[in-house]
Amino acid sequence: MKKFVLASGSPRRKELLSEIIPEFEIIPAKGEEVIKDTDPAMVVESLSKQKCEEIFHKILTNEGSDIVVIGADTVVSYNQKILGKPCDKADARRMISDFQGDVHQVYTGVTIMYVKDSSEQSFTFHVRTDVEVYDMTDEEIESYISTDEPYDKAGGYGIQGLFGVYVKGIRGDYNNVVGLPVSKLFHECKRLELI
Amino acid sequence: MKKFVLASGSPRRKELLSEIIPEFEIIPAKGEEVIKDTDPAMVVESLSKQKCEEIFHKILTNEGSDIVVIGADTVVSYNQKILGKPCDKADARRMISDFQGDVHQVYTGVTIMYVKDSSEQSFTFHVRTDVEVYDMTDEEIESYISTDEPYDKAGGYGIQGLFGVYVKGIRGDYNNVVGLPVSKLFHECKRLELI
Repeated sequence: MKKFVLASGSPRRKELLSEIIPEFEIIPAKGEEVIKDTDPAMVVESLSKQKCEEIFHKILTNEGSDIVVIGADTVVSYNQKILGKPCDKADARRMISDFQGDVHQVYTGVTIMYVKDSSEQSFTFHVRTDVEVYDMTDEEIESYISTDEPYDKAGGYGIQGLFGVYVKGIRGDYNNVVGLPVSKLFHECKRLELI
Repeated sequence: MKKFVLASGSPRRKELLSEIIPEFEIIPAKGEEVIKDTDPAMVVESLSKQKCEEIFHKILTNEGSDIVVIGADTVVSYNQKILGKPCDKADARRMISDFQGDVHQVYTGVTIMYVKDSSEQSFTFHVRTDVEVYDMTDEEIESYISTDEPYDKAGGYGIQGLFGVYVKGIRGDYNNVVGLPVSKLFHECKRLELI
């Protein structure tokens, strides 16, 4: 049995990964995220790879060749702009006011690194989900940004939390919006014969 | 403050309703479900209304006019056929083998009953979500139907449980597939000035 490591400290990703991998270790990547692209699909693929490589190279010598590291990164994209985590209340207000009443995109990039036939293997993919948000009143926005929810989440909201009542519908994978496209990850791990 | 009652014993609906209504009572409807339609949208609207009316009329005299009752019903529809809850393992196997590798529809009907200006009010709507399921191997189907999950759920699966890894994507409201379209219900309750 291979030893899985999740290179992310997100409790949401931990919960989702546990749906397909019964036991794994969590070693969050710390490295500076260096963004060179403006295309959200390229950004999340690149950041998931940076995170995954950091942890893979850190632990490879200790753990031997039975290790599989999974890195992931999520961004929200609206009108060609990438929205990261809001830095304060004004930032969260600006983000949500901007995309309410419209459709935006959530991208999650995932990288899987492992060893096969003594050589390092790396596989990266991304999943896009469109999210449609109801029109929101100023009162609804103020009420939401006064909670703790927006501040550790890309785009300033969590679909699985209090923000759920403002989401009209999605097109694509729901878990991808939560932070890990677990059904595609499951199928890729099966295809790569890791599970 | 109005007193809300959920006319359903589903723990999933209870959890979803608590996202918009802080306190409510649960009184599951018991009545025989009488299906007269073959159109899934009409079926779920009609069944949600039957459930809601049963509880509304049962408790109205005791509770006075500040009561709001919510009834809901969910079915899965594939190839013009309505799939209810599987009655046994063979039934669950048949349902899942049938719709795997393709797109099916989930319909939830919701009825809200309350009193306004001394007269009974009833409002019914439905929400449809399309769900795309990955190709599944016989082994994957056998493994899933050997769990407890399929047997209390329309269509024989729960999107929020173990079946999630087989769902490629959806189009529409995720919570509608879980059993209650809580974002539309939130907006309708606001519009009707119930919350």
